[in-house]
Order: sequence, then structure tokens, then C-alpha cells
Amino acid sequence: MIGAVGHGTEGELDMEERVGAEKQGLPLSSELMLLIHATSPEVAAYLQRSRAIAIPMGSTEQHGPVGLIGTDTLAAEAVAHGLGERLGVLVGPSVGLSVAQFNLGFAGTVSIRARTLMALLEDYVLSLARQGFERFYFVNGHGANIAPARAAFQDIYARWSLGTMPGHAPRCRLRSWWEYPAADALRKRWYGDGEGMHATPSEISITLHVVPGSDRAVAAPRPPALPAAFLRDHGGDNHWDAATHRGQFADGRVGSDSALAHAEHGRELLAAAIDGACDDFTAFLEEA
Amino acid sequence: MIGAVGHGTEGELDMEERVGAEKQGLPLSSELMLLIHATSPEVAAYLQRSRAIAIPMGSTEQHGPVGLIGTDTLAAEAVAHGLGERLGVLVGPSVGLSVAQFNLGFAGTVSIRARTLMALLEDYVLSLARQGFERFYFVNGHGANIAPARAAFQDIYARWSLGTMPGHAPRCRLRSWWEYPAADALRKRWYGDGEGMHATPSEISITLHVVPGSDRAVAAPRPPALPAAFLRDHGGDNHWDAATHRGQFADGRVGSDSALAHAEHGRELLAAAIDGACDDFTAFLEEA
Amino acid sequence: MIGAVGHGTEGELDMEERVGAEKQGLPLSSELMLLIHATSPEVAAYLQRSRAIAIPMGSTEQHGPVGLIGTDTLAAEAVAHGLGERLGVLVGPSVGLSVAQFNLGFAGTVSIRARTLMALLEDYVLSLARQGFERFYFVNGHGANIAPARAAFQDIYARWSLGTMPGHAPRCRLRSWWEYPAADALRKRWYGDGEGMHATPSEISITLHVVPGSDRAVAAPRPPALPAAFLRDHGGDNHWDAATHRGQFADGRVGSDSALAHAEHGRELLAAAIDGACDDFTAFLEEA
Amino acid sequence: MIGAVGHGTEGELDMEERVGAEKQGLPLSSELMLLIHATSPEVAAYLQRSRAIAIPMGSTEQHGPVGLIGTDTLAAEAVAHGLGERLGVLVGPSVGLSVAQFNLGFAGTVSIRARTLMALLEDYVLSLARQGFERFYFVNGHGANIAPARAAFQDIYARWSLGTMPGHAPRCRLRSWWEYPAADALRKRWYGDGEGMHATPSEISITLHVVPGSDRAVAAPRPPALPAAFLRDHGGDNHWDAATHRGQFADGRVGSDSALAHAEHGRELLAAAIDGACDDFTAFLEEA
Amino acid sequence: MIGAVGHGTEGELDMEERVGAEKQGLPLSSELMLLIHATSPEVAAYLQRSRAIAIPMGSTEQHGPVGLIGTDTLAAEAVAHGLGERLGVLVGPSVGLSVAQFNLGFAGTVSIRARTLMALLEDYVLSLARQGFERFYFVNGHGANIAPARAAFQDIYARWSLGTMPGHAPRCRLRSWWEYPAADALRKRWYGDGEGMHATPSEISITLHVVPGSDRAVAAPRPPALPAAFLRDHGGDNHWDAATHRGQFADGRVGSDSALAHAEHGRELLAAAIDGACDDFTAFLEEA
Amino acid sequence: MIGAVGHGTEGELDMEERVGAEKQGLPLSSELMLLIHATSPEVAAYLQRSRAIAIPMGSTEQHGPVGLIGTDTLAAEAVAHGLGERLGVLVGPSVGLSVAQFNLGFAGTVSIRARTLMALLEDYVLSLARQGFERFYFVNGHGANIAPARAAFQDIYARWSLGTMPGHAPRCRLRSWWEYPAADALRKRWYGDGEGMHATPSEISITLHVVPGSDRAVAAPRPPALPAAFLRDHGGDNHWDAATHRGQFADGRVGSDSALAHAEHGRELLAAAIDGACDDFTAFLEEA
Repeated sequence: MIGAVGHGTEGELDMEERVGAEKQGLPLSSELMLLIHATSPEVAAYLQRSRAIAIPMGSTEQHGPVGLIGTDTLAAEAVAHGLGERLGVLVGPSVGLSVAQFNLGFAGTVSIRARTLMALLEDYVLSLARQGFERFYFVNGHGANIAPARAAFQDIYARWSLGTMPGHAPRCRLRSWWEYPAADALRKRWYGDGEGMHATPSEISITLHVVPGSDRAVAAPRPPALPAAFLRDHGGDNHWDAATHRGQFADGRVGSDSALAHAEHGRELLAAAIDGACDDFTAFLEEA
Repeated sequence: MIGAVGHGTEGELDMEERVGAEKQGLPLSSELMLLIHATSPEVAAYLQRSRAIAIPMGSTEQHGPVGLIGTDTLAAEAVAHGLGERLGVLVGPSVGLSVAQFNLGFAGTVSIRARTLMALLEDYVLSLARQGFERFYFVNGHGANIAPARAAFQDIYARWSLGTMPGHAPRCRLRSWWEYPAADALRKRWYGDGEGMHATPSEISITLHVVPGSDRAVAAPRPPALPAAFLRDHGGDNHWDAATHRGQFADGRVGSDSALAHAEHGRELLAAAIDGACDDFTAFLEEA
Repeated sequence: MIGAVGHGTEGELDMEERVGAEKQGLPLSSELMLLIHATSPEVAAYLQRSRAIAIPMGSTEQHGPVGLIGTDTLAAEAVAHGLGERLGVLVGPSVGLSVAQFNLGFAGTVSIRARTLMALLEDYVLSLARQGFERFYFVNGHGANIAPARAAFQDIYARWSLGTMPGHAPRCRLRSWWEYPAADALRKRWYGDGEGMHATPSEISITLHVVPGSDRAVAAPRPPALPAAFLRDHGGDNHWDAATHRGQFADGRVGSDSALAHAEHGRELLAAAIDGACDDFTAFLEEA
Repeated sequence: MIGAVGHGTEGELDMEERVGAEKQGLPLSSELMLLIHATSPEVAAYLQRSRAIAIPMGSTEQHGPVGLIGTDTLAAEAVAHGLGERLGVLVGPSVGLSVAQFNLGFAGTVSIRARTLMALLEDYVLSLARQGFERFYFVNGHGANIAPARAAFQDIYARWSLGTMPGHAPRCRLRSWWEYPAADALRKRWYGDGEGMHATPSEISITLHVVPGSDRAVAAPRPPALPAAFLRDHGGDNHWDAATHRGQFADGRVGSDSALAHAEHGRELLAAAIDGACDDFTAFLEEA
Repeated sequence: MIGAVGHGTEGELDMEERVGAEKQGLPLSSELMLLIHATSPEVAAYLQRSRAIAIPMGSTEQHGPVGLIGTDTLAAEAVAHGLGERLGVLVGPSVGLSVAQFNLGFAGTVSIRARTLMALLEDYVLSLARQGFERFYFVNGHGANIAPARAAFQDIYARWSLGTMPGHAPRCRLRSWWEYPAADALRKRWYGDGEGMHATPSEISITLHVVPGSDRAVAAPRPPALPAAFLRDHGGDNHWDAATHRGQFADGRVGSDSALAHAEHGRELLAAAIDGACDDFTAFLEEA
Repeated sequence: MIGAVGHGTEGELDMEERVGAEKQGLPLSSELMLLIHATSPEVAAYLQRSRAIAIPMGSTEQHGPVGLIGTDTLAAEAVAHGLGERLGVLVGPSVGLSVAQFNLGFAGTVSIRARTLMALLEDYVLSLARQGFERFYFVNGHGANIAPARAAFQDIYARWSLGTMPGHAPRCRLRSWWEYPAADALRKRWYGDGEGMHATPSEISITLHVVPGSDRAVAAPRPPALPAAFLRDHGGDNHWDAATHRGQFADGRVGSDSALAHAEHGRELLAAAIDGACDDFTAFLEEA
């Protein structure tokens, strides 16, 4: 078993989690088990005590003048690793190449088609379902992943629903780290309108925490606050094409005042998100 | 031009809509223009004054002991027709075959794979974009459509974002009728916990209004209220496979007390939804 | 059960149909059962007496200066509804978005790729086959549907033929309404060369009958008769691409003298087609 | 240039063909030019005088107790080679792997999915269209090819119709050899009801002629004549799945009295079909 | 059973082959059994004694100024026919339309997408596997086939590995004729640097042998020898796009001195390759 | 710019590399630039001096009793990072989910279909090509990636070869780290027959070096040496399905004596591979 990579959290199991974990036979371990760092016999042993896996989903896309291209992946991994460490959940390889067509006008963005992402997720889940995994918990860091991931889940379930797969269907849940209530409260409290939608101070705070030295000395003037209607209509990265997007958001940020980010914020946001992830994951395992 | 089909609304344009409509050159007509009832020269003339189209999206799936299988399509069509009638917006054919894998265990449900729905939407939009349509407004009545429709929009935009289509990209917006604030308020006020998630009294009220005589004399006992966590986690019809779903919801309703439905409620809900659709559509056309 | 929508036919069952229907356990009802207007329990009850469903297929494409864009769908629906009403056959939602690439140069045409239509038909049939439906009868109103529908049937059968689906395969039949002998005789008698291939007076007559008030006061000069070779080579809408097609048929009609259409003709054509559909559907159920 | 392979026809050009060929700049040669036997510079030279190519389509499927598995391919090749020889038309490689799911229950049948065949045809046509070929004439020997080939043509044309391909679209025509009037007349005259639908004496006659020594000494009793309704409903190999088909047609023939076949019939049928192919190909080139 | 087509080899079975063949129940026949020339009952009888089939894979692409467009197919067929003749192995229809995108700039090249070729191979193998074939031996003549064929094999095996196909998986082997040691030694001895990579004297020698009269009187100056690094990096036709390829290799040859080709060389190369194929095929059948 | 992650190599540029790098404008930097750790403006600046990117490809599959599931990814990343560090080449996110169907019978293996991997690689390359990247260098650690990656490259080039993409095509090269001559020599010298094919001591040595503490105290008896024919026929992970594979290789190793692995070997192998990668990458950029 491989130790944590450095952004550990000193989280302790609260009673509810402990009960949930024990019901699932989770090891209550404080060590992180990454699939890529495990051996196959270790995974076989893990399957004796749990049928669940956590999988980070991020993106590879521009995050404004100072945000890292891997911001979403780094944040999702940090939360998933924290979850894995605290509850002893196996963590699979990240899905870091994902859908971001609206950012293709900015250097460094990689966008795969939604249908490609769906095929990838289907194959990922089917592979592990064949070996006995039953619950797939996706920790998400990128809004544009939500729609294609859910569409992929539909097509995964459809295989069993149409009778083309034997046995019973696995279950998938995707949760974005900013949905966890405590993390959400922090970002609203600290950044308000400055949080915006892309290259947000909250996600940049997390990367400042998990990638020491990643702060950039670029001056980025505060963008104007986004209207409420825009926030509602474009939630989940519900953006248009690349040319339009670059035309509207010349420096890549979508209403986010990245300069508000701080590594210490990141540490607190991450801790709050990991708490939320542990609660939610436990609830997922308990769902009838 | 074909007159309305019978569930017309006597809505009047408020000032904001009027301004928006005039900016887009909409005819401010009170007649309904359905694409299937128009001629090609009429569509060509329409394109001289507007580049927008409204498209209903529904489903073909069980809606419990008394709800109609076409409930979602009927509700979405009623809203879209009201929008079309009031603002003179062309209304395209409904997308009524959609994703509902979790309901395949109930007779009468048709479910297409998410990828099939995405291909259908891509072809639909590309066809009309070729002729000059630029804004596609989907009026939705089925939660499980949201994810694959958004994923389809991503792949539509990706064609332009990767430089494989000439010209500039069209824009799509999907809005579910229950998201319109006034309609949402009514269903919360009238049904509270009894609204539930599927075969809801609100949608059944609408079909009672638009399909006279569709009430069924089946006794359906009130189901227990759904926990808040269930509502959150399964929003957007984020359900599992068919066997699990039927196992959990034996009569097909998901926490909905269908018996609360009334045709008169339906009339009011529909009016509220149409008001919301007109506002939202106008805002869509005005979006930069 | 929902009553007919207004273009009912007073058809009576002849003896052969009655026998066939009784053998299949059809209800010999005179009411129309539309899937979208039925409840799931009603469909479950229907499956106790019949394993067959009728599905209209049309198109969304220009039909010349005076024909409606939904002409093919409207005609197919009228025939399928008549069949459903007379023999008590369940009628599924229409497939109205279909292949019409040659008409994309005319405003209002929507064309989906043949492969998209095939995926849609596969999912449609597989969904209902899972619940016990065994015979799928497609009533067609659009020549260009024939090839992709048959190709879809091949791929549906291939799933069972290759052993990737359990149970035994469903069966599909597609019949275009103008193939029914009595309807075919009427259109030849009334229109001769003026029938042509697209926006034909026969299909426009039917829409004049089923959509009261749909006549347009546009003067459309009689087009020259098509050569026999053209009729043979381009049957089944075996046309080229959009630019070529618009170049060759500037007003969208293909050799059809739409001005010959009359609503009364439509009523008679429809009655003849429904008779034919009932005979053919009965034969389909009886086929070994 | 490569000489004929042995089943040459001494056909002479009639006046109409000569005129058509000269208009297209065809060489009026009596030599057969097969693409696989040509060099690239020779094809480049050919493109200076013609933009057309002929492509045989067959199948790889059982043909009853005495028919060869490649019967359809052999017949289509023989006709296409005759056409190529007489009019100097380039002949591309045969498409001999095709759709025959209903025959998968018989040893030796290879069936590809309709969507696979469509992809193959798309790539075939697009490759040569890129180099200047404009007219693709498919000589067909297998009924089940007709639907997927036409569906493929639709999707080929759709690429240009949607504006995703530069230049103007190529044109495709598929003709089955038994559609040529003189060949059709012969098989009706000689075999009547015994012609049937599969493993027909006419196609077996052709293979007896083009594959000397291919007669098999198997006794195959005359099958009963097929009802007219069966012939109509199952034309174009519109058959069901493999298990049903083998159940219905135990020795693989569909109403065909293969024992009527003679090599001399084959020679005459082939000559008639080649005459028809030359006429039809010439008309294809002349089509506006 | 159909006799050989003219390029027979008088090979005798060595002891090891004889033992291997007997273990597999191969007939030790000296006649060639082509699937297209066999009847279904003959294939059924063959399956009683063998579960293996040989399938030639070639290409349809330019081969320089004097090479035939079908060179790769002709060579692969000649080897496969020799193998089939000597060991009594059934030979399936050739896959002659394949991937050659880099040659699309030369007239006469047909290139299908890798994914199309993969679908074709999947369907080919699945069809015959359904009837009991278990070992598929692909005799290859085109370097660019290797990658997509192996990728297709992966996806074929994946169907069984994921549990979506019943029974046990078939096995596929692809071998290019120039890999057989004796054939490889001859081409190195005779041509050295002049062998090059495309339109090689060895493959042209084989076509000169199997297609009498196919020599072209075109003067083709000796191309410069390819650097070792180029040979290593572009093995398996690992070439770029069409424009680049034509820009780099103006006459289509890739470092090959086609003028060194002789029909007599072809005869010897073919004999050596057939020997190698027999050894390798026998080993394939014996593999645990 | 982000510093190296800890397994740095103190490599110095030799003269040839220096010249090649300068011609390409590479920065000759000793810092590692990972795409996920860069900002978009930094990538834009990088594009001013280089059009190349390195991308690691690995797998997520069992590696025997003591090897890590991420072995292939970890090794490929270590080499790519060394290359990136020494030559200043941007390194993109790893492709770590790949094709390994034969290992699906072992817990922890994730296998995506070859066609899924191809779609992923196409989208990856097309995204960056849109922004100006022209040379894609894949550093590979998993034999089964070679075929689908090359097939993907073919389909990428086909887009340009068929004229469906504007501009000129990018170029891709894939090289497995064990192909670099010095690394290959070391593993042959140290392990001989014990190297085997999967869970080899060489790759495990590298992971022991790059993941300190990853050694497992499991006793794994030396497997018998693989026959030469097996090595040749199954190179590139040319294995069968999961059930067969697990049946033949019960502990997951394929002829590899994992116990020979040492972290110090890993350090030396890695240094040799990085040297090879720098040479080969430089040659790739210089290729005409």
C-alpha cells in the first residue's frame, strides 16, 4: 500500500461515517490506496471488503492568466485522495481528458468529444464491474463533465436494462467538489461575486495548496461580476463554441477574480470538500 | 399558417418581451406556426424575420398507474405551442423518443440510448443551421433529457470549435418547463412533498388539461414522501437500471401523489410556464 | 382509452380481418389506442391480447410551394390511426425526423443521417421487444425511409442472428401507404403523370383532408411529366445531394402537379389506404 | 491493360451506347480494365477520359445444397466485367462481404452489419471522389445489399448537403443484374415459379457458366412455389433472423428449383444482363 | 471442390506439417478450397475436420509507375491459395479494401478508415465464429493493415473478455508474407537496399508471376536507398497524410527499385512464402 | 514553470541533440514543463518556440504478484518527464486507460476498447493541432497500445487526406521505452530469458526506482522461459481473451522473473531510455 502524496488531511471519522464504513466493510484505514500503485492481489483482497471505487474527473483546459491547465484534475484528485485516505477507498486513475470545446481557442486546452468521454467511461465501468465492483463514485472538478458523464451512466444502465449484459447493473454517482455544502459555503463567504464560473479563486486556491510554487506573478484585473441570468444559464459549463467563448472572455476567466486565491484558502476548502465527500460517499454506499 | 390546436393561452406580450421580439424581428403574432404545418416558402419568409426555433422534448415512458405515457411530450408541446403562439416563434417537431432506460421494466416505455439521442439532436440542429437558423430553444418535459441534450450541444459546438464546420456556430438552450419560476412556485405551493419526481401531480395536471378525457379512475395510494437526499441525488432522472427501478418503485411513480392532479391546475401551470418560456426565450435571443 | 382525433374512418372489419384479429386476440375495437395517450397498465393489458404495434414513419421536409413540411408524417399517421382504430392496434409515436438530405437546400427541411435513423429504430424496437412486443408494423409516408429502415431491420435481426441477444427476434414490416393496391389505383386514375414523385397530389390531398384549412393559395404551374427512366431510377427518393436537387427542381416538386389535390380525394385515398393497411397488417400477423 | 479473365462476351456497341460513350469520352475499347490490375498512371490517364467506375457487389452466403457461397459476387463480377470490357469502363474491386444475417445459420455465410457495409461504401466512394471520380455504378448480385447501399448513398450525399465536404457531390447508382429487362424476361420464361428468391436457377446458371466444373451432383428436390405475398414482402432479401430463416428454409433455398440451372442458360443470361448494364450505365452517365 | 487457379505450387508436406495437420484433422489435400467456390454443405463437412480458415488481406493502392494497384492483394491471395492447396485449409474472401490514407494522392487508391476495417474484420470473424470456426489466419500483403487488424482482434477478444458474448473466444493471427524467413532471405539477397518499402521488387515479382502479362514498359529510375532510421520509423506503412506522402515520394515508390523485379523471382518468393505459411499456420493450430 | 517531481536525471545534452533542439527553437531548459502545471499563456509562449509535445501512454492492468497496476504508465511518464526536463519539451497528460482486454480476468485491470482509445487519441491530437501543435511524440510503456495508436494515427491522417480538415496534417510518432537501444541492451544483459513479456523485471525495476517503497514482499517463483515462437507471435501484447490468458498465465506474469528487479537497475534503465528518447525525439523533429 502506498502512502499519501503530501496533501494529506488529518480528518477523523465521525460516528456516522464509521458506521457506514463498517457496514460496507471498509478498512477505516488512514492510508491512501491508488489503483495505479496497488498490485492485482491487493485489489483482489480489497474486493473482499468493498465493492466501491472513487474516480477523479477533471479537465485539461485553460484557467485564465494565472490558473493551471490541470486545475480541475488537481482539485478532483486532491478531494478523491483525501476521501480514499480517510475511508480506505480505492482511487482509480483520473479522467483528465474531457469535454471543453468552448476553451479550444486558448492554447493548451484539450477537448474530447462528449461521445468519446462517454465511451471511455462506459469501458472504465464495465471493466471493473466484470471483476465485482458495484459502486462507482466520481469526484468531479469540471462542470462540463456533468452532462456527458450522466449520459454515459444512462448508456451503462441501458446495457443491463435492455438485457444485453448478464448479472445486475453497477451504480454510478458523480459529485462536483463545490457541491459539498461546507466547501460551497466557504467559497461564497470568501469570494462572493468574485467566485465567478471559471478559473475561480476557490479552485485556484486548491491548486496553490496542492502544487506548492504554482502561483504566477501575473496581474489579472478583476473582471466584472456576472449577471445572475448568466450564472444560471451557463452553469455546468454550458457554454458555446470556442470562437464565441474567446470573443466574450478574452483572458479565459469567466467572471472570476482569480487574484483572490490563497493557498491557505485552498487547504480549508479542500478539508471541507473532503469532509463532504466522505459523508456523501458513505450515503452512496448506504443507498438502497 | 395553421391555427392553434385548442389549448391556446390568451397571453399578452409584456413590454420587455415586445422589445426583445422586435429586436429579433419576431412577428408578435398570435398564431401558432408549427414546422410540420408550414410550407417551405413560409419558412423561408420566417427566416427573413427570425433565426430562432423552439423544439419540444419529451419522452415515451410509463407515468405510473394513471399518468399517460406521453405525459412529458404533451406538457413540453403545450408550453412550446404557447410560446410559439404568443411570440410567433416557429415550433419544430417534438423529440418524443428519448432516454428512459430506468423505466424499461414498465410496459410501453421506449428508451433510446443517450448516444442515439445525441446523434438525432446533432442532425436536427445541423440541418436547420445550414438554412440559416441560429438559435435553438428546447422546451423540455423530461429530466433524463437534460444530460444527453447538453452533451449533444457540446458535440455540436465542437464541430465549429475544431474547425470542421464553416461559418459560425448555432446556439442551443434547453429549459425544462418546471424551471420557470412561476410554474415552479405553483407546484410547490399546491403539492409540496406530494410533487415527488416522476408522474408528478403537476405534469399530470397539464395532461388532464391538454388531453380532455384523459383522467383514469385508478386508485393510487399516496406514496411516502421522498427524502431530501434522494431528491438531490436523483434530480434530472438520475436513476439506475430498469430492474432496480422497478424493484424500488413498484407502481412507477417516484414519490409523486398523482391523485392531487386537476385539469384546472394544469391550465394555470401551463399559463405560468408559457409566461416563463416567453421571458426566457426573449432573454435567449438577447444574449450576447 | 383515448378517442380518435377527428379523421376517423367508419371502416368495418371484413371476415378475413376478423379471423386474423381473433387469432391474434386483437380487441376488434373501434377506438384508437395511441401509446402516448395510454397508461402503462393499459399497455400491459394490451400485451395480454396482442404482441403487435403500428408505428408511423414520415419526414420533415419541403413539399413544394403549397405542400406542408409534415406531409409525409401527417399521411402516415392518418393511415396508422385508421388501422389502429379499426383493428384495435396500439399505435406508437411517429418517427417524423428522417432522411431527406436532397431537400436540405429548401428552408424547413430537417434531415438526419441514415445511420442516426437506424440507431433510433433499433432502440425503439429493442425497447418494446424487451417488454414482449414481437411484431412491428411501420406505416410509411416517405420514400427515403425505406432503405435505412430496412437496413435497420437487418441490424436488429443481426443481434439475434449473431447470438448477442437472448430469446427470439422480433419481426418488422414497413409498408408505404401508396403501395396498398386500392390507394395506388386511385392516385393513378386521378392524377396519371401529374402524380410525379414528391409533393404529389395524392399526399397533398390527404393533408388537405386531415389538416382542415391547410390549403395554400399559391399558384404552382404544372411541371412537365417525368420520364419513365427517371421514375424508375429515383423511386424511393433515390435522389442526390441538396445542391443538385435544388438545381434540378427549383420549386421543390419532383414532377408532381400539386394543384390536382383535393380534400375529398384525400378522404377517399385515406379510406383506401386504411383498408389496405388492415389487410396487410392482418397478413403480417399471420405470417409463419 | 489487362485482358479479360475468360468469360468474355462478344458484345458490340449499339448506336445509342456509342453516342453515350463518346459523350463521356469512354474509349470504346474491348479490353477489360480492372482497378487491381491497373497501375496508378493508367488510372490517372483513364480519369482524363472518364469520371466513372463500375463496382460489383455480391455476398458470401449459402446458396442451398448446390449453389456456391460466392454466387452473388461471381454473377455481379461477370456482368461488371462484361460492361467494363465492352464500354472500357474501369471496374473496381468487388464488395463481396455484405449483409446476410438471415443466412448466418448456414455454414460458410459471412454477414457484416448494415452499418459496417455503409461505412465501407462511404470510404470507397470518398476515396475515389477525392481523385476526381464522379459516377459510381454498382452492379449488384445480392438483394440484401440494396437497402444498406442506398442508405450509404444517402449518408454520402448528406456530407455534401450539410456543407461538410468541399466541391460537388459524386453520384451513385446500384442496379441488380436481374433488373435488366432482357435478363429478367429470360429467367421468367425459363423458370417461372421455380426461379424463387434465393439460390435461384438463374444465378446458379451464371455461376455454372463462369466457374466451369462448379456443378454439384447433389439431388435437391423441387421446393414448393412461393406465394405471391411472400415474394412481394420478402423481395430484396427482406428476411428475418438466422434461426427463423433456417427453420423456414431447411436446405437454404427460398422457393428456388436450383436443378433447373444450366451453364448454357448462364451464358445467355449473362449476355442479356451485360447488354442491359451497358444501356443503363450509358443512361446513368447521361443523366442531367 | 474447385481446382487451383493457375499459380499452384507443387509443395509437399514435410513431416512436421503432416503431424500438425493430422492433429487438426486437416485433409492433407492438394486441392484448393475457396469459400466463394464451395457450397454450404461442403463447409459444414469441412467444419467436421477443421475449425480454421485462412483469409488474405491486401490493399487497393498505387504501387508506383509499374506496380499494379492490387499488388498487395494479389500477393496475399497467392500465398493463401498455396497454403490452402497444400494443407487443405479453407480460404475466405480477401479483404482487399483497406487502410492506405497516405496514398490517396495517387489515382486509383482506395482507403477505408481504420475503424471501418476494424468493423469489417469484427463482423467477418463473428459470423464464422458463430458457426464453429475458431482459428482465423490472416495472410497479409500490406503493412498498413497490421495495426488496425490487431486493434480489431483486441476488440473481438474484448467482447468475450467483458462477458458480452457466450462461449469461448476465437483466435486470430496475422502474418505478412515477407515475414516468413525464407521469403525474407530471398528478398534481402536479391534486392538489398533496392527492396525499399513500397512497390518493392519482391512484391512486383510476385505479381509478374501470378498475373502473366502484367509487366509495364515504363522506365522508372532507381530511387536513392532509404536511411535505416526511415526504414525503422516507417515500417508497417507508418506514413503520414496523402499530401505529405506525395510530396516526398513523387512517383509513389518508397525507396524501391521496382525494375529489379522478375517473374521468376516471384515464383521462388511465392514458393518460399507458401512454405513459411504452412509452417506458421501449423504452429498456429498447435498453439495451446 | 513547475519543477521536476523527484526522479530527475542529470542528463546533459550531447551535441547532436543540442543542434536539433536549437533548430526547433527548444529552450534547452532543465526544467520540466507539464501541461497540467502550465498556464495557457505559458503554453502560448511555448508555441512560439516549439510545435511539439510529448505524451506518455501506459496502462491500468495487473502486473503479476508484485508489479504495480500502473507500471506501464509510471515507466512511460518517467521517460517522458526526463525527455521534457532535458530538452524543454512540453509533456501532456498521460493516456493511462488503454487496451488490455486479455488482463480483464485479473482484479484491478481496466481495459477500454481499441476504438475508444482511437477516438481519445484523435480528439487529443485534433485539439492541440487546432492551436498550432504539429508533432506529437508518444512515449509508450504498454505493448497493446501500439496497434490502436497507429490505427488512430491513420484515421487522423485520413481526415486531412480526404480533404475534410483545413491546413496541413500533424505528425505522430509512438516509441516504446524498451525500443531505445541502450535500454534494450541493459534488459537483455541483466535478465536474458527472465525478462519475458509482462511484469518484466525491467519495468518493475523502473517502478521500484520512481515509486520508492513500492517493493512487495511476495514470493513469486521463477516462471519457465518462453519459447522464441511465443515471444515473436505475442509481441506487442498480441494476446487472446481474458479467460484464455488467465488460464495460461495464472499469476499474471508472462514469462517474466519479476524477482530480478532492482531499484538501481531501474535508475540505469531509465537514464538509458531517456537518452534514447532525447535522440529519437530530436530525430523526429528533424524528419523532413
